[in-house]
Amino acid sequence: MTGARRPRVTSRDIAREVGVSQPTVSRALRGDPRVAPATAALVETAARRLGYVPIAAGRSLSTRRTGTAAIVVADITNPFYPELVDALHGELARAGYRSVLLNERTDGHGAEGIRSLLRSGVVDGVIVATATIDDRTRRLLTDERAPIVQLIREVGEALRDAAVCDNRGGGELAAELLAGLGHRRIAVVAGAPDASTTRERQAGFATALQRLGLSLDPDLQRSGDFAHHTGYGACLELLDLPEPPTALFCGNDVIALGALDAARRRRIAVPDRLSIVGFDDISLAGWESFRLTTVRQPLAEMAHEAARTLVWRIEEADDAPPRRTVFPVELIQRATTGPPAVP
Amino acid sequence: MTGARRPRVTSRDIAREVGVSQPTVSRALRGDPRVAPATAALVETAARRLGYVPIAAGRSLSTRRTGTAAIVVADITNPFYPELVDALHGELARAGYRSVLLNERTDGHGAEGIRSLLRSGVVDGVIVATATIDDRTRRLLTDERAPIVQLIREVGEALRDAAVCDNRGGGELAAELLAGLGHRRIAVVAGAPDASTTRERQAGFATALQRLGLSLDPDLQRSGDFAHHTGYGACLELLDLPEPPTALFCGNDVIALGALDAARRRRIAVPDRLSIVGFDDISLAGWESFRLTTVRQPLAEMAHEAARTLVWRIEEADDAPPRRTVFPVELIQRATTGPPAVP
Repeated sequence: MTGARRPRVTSRDIAREVGVSQPTVSRALRGDPRVAPATAALVETAARRLGYVPIAAGRSLSTRRTGTAAIVVADITNPFYPELVDALHGELARAGYRSVLLNERTDGHGAEGIRSLLRSGVVDGVIVATATIDDRTRRLLTDERAPIVQLIREVGEALRDAAVCDNRGGGELAAELLAGLGHRRIAVVAGAPDASTTRERQAGFATALQRLGLSLDPDLQRSGDFAHHTGYGACLELLDLPEPPTALFCGNDVIALGALDAARRRRIAVPDRLSIVGFDDISLAGWESFRLTTVRQPLAEMAHEAARTLVWRIEEADDAPPRRTVFPVELIQRATTGPPAVP
Repeated sequence: MTGARRPRVTSRDIAREVGVSQPTVSRALRGDPRVAPATAALVETAARRLGYVPIAAGRSLSTRRTGTAAIVVADITNPFYPELVDALHGELARAGYRSVLLNERTDGHGAEGIRSLLRSGVVDGVIVATATIDDRTRRLLTDERAPIVQLIREVGEALRDAAVCDNRGGGELAAELLAGLGHRRIAVVAGAPDASTTRERQAGFATALQRLGLSLDPDLQRSGDFAHHTGYGACLELLDLPEPPTALFCGNDVIALGALDAARRRRIAVPDRLSIVGFDDISLAGWESFRLTTVRQPLAEMAHEAARTLVWRIEEADDAPPRRTVFPVELIQRATTGPPAVP
């Protein structure tokens, strides 16, 4: 059914038809007053006759913008991302941009993939929600001239535009809560070690515990993907120790929900015998079956900020220094935390 | 940072440079033996000199394909869609296609949005996972010449390519299970009434109950979005009735998880006082906190089939009759169903 589709008419075709330059056509089509009214009328007539459709209404043609932004996520099946993607989609659409979602797990879009995407001219810019701290990513963010905004995670402060939360402060809040409840034997199930969020949250957590006179037992530390199976597996292991922990700080909510599932599997009462704290406050965290205590980062607001920053960078701020916005976090106490059982 | 980017070089630019037709350039670039070796060499040299980058390697240029497919979903925050999108992304990527995700809720891509997207020439085809049974959608599927594949839901059999499951058979399985366990007071919380899945599942459920000598009490029927809040709200209402139901058939898993949360909220033991059956078998259904009994549709396989069908339709089968694949379903019995309590 595609055979009969005609080639897209471009502003260059109109220029040839009217006998003016392509920039003149672009200017005429966006109503630039520098174009003589007679020329503008000729251009408009030719555009109508040829069936010209602007790529995105109101967008500058002379800079060859596509009106499309890419969003790169690590794994769309993680319940964390859909909420982000929904907010990004909405904000980009309001600014007149179509969005392309790239799923790193299936598209293989690491640093090199993002680079080739930008160079192919298919998108005007990229929002990366999955930056990992490695040399290739650092090089991409240093070298590449096209707009890239980091969301949630970042590779080195001040390198690029970023919308992140106070991950360190969030780790501190979790430590203060658990220490304040009287927990002494505290385990950590961290997320991916090459993510800035993991490093910051763990650093904040460890620092605050130390300040409160507590230390982290290396035998009680685990890490893995930001996934349900990470929390599930690690929690089963920890519960099987001769002296299991009484509290668990998890790298994110999905890990915490996995840990909660493991506790239920072993019939360990939460929070009586095990307290669990997550990070993010995704919508599942508030469901009746979980009622997870967590550190809330304002995901939707951060996504909106990242989208606005990308649009600003594409349309106005070629050379402005990086804009980094750090959002405050908030402790949400629900049903998975309480004082440890008296032994 | 975008200002310095140069306009994309097209096969037409190469044609002008070499002094041959654009189709000749396309043929030369894909190694078609009908092009004389000397001409092919000239074209290749010009392509290199001008910095020509093919839109997608190996793709036919003469048909102006973009190498991009669109996926339209209703609401990406529904845990149902990410698993589908992941499978679609993967399969399309393997076939050399980039995918654009359109989120109907935020992009406003109903039937008219899909039509304008196809006409803009930005994508080669669309996979619609959210078709609703209305006149505009029916018109789109009847009129539009570009490739459109329906996934999960469909608007009228035999109208277009489709990958669906045996929804009617799934409804029958659920009815047979609940009736066989001894339930007589059975409620239904259906999904969106304008989705084919809702109609088919309910029809199968009602027909099987009737065959087994049972009838559906109209006072025990509810419907709403395919969302957690639908199941949560409807289940609270049903539990507050003077004579509440002993079993609940839900339009999908997310509705069923909402219902389960409502039962927990009211401290109603599941399955002792209320049995709950979902539909889909999303990954959450298997989590320890839920262990939901459900009718499994093979989401990943259906997504793979839809992607393969779209690629076939774009690349080979302009005029072939619609290809409709119906996948079998399977009852997965977990912990949310059992015989009703003896009153």
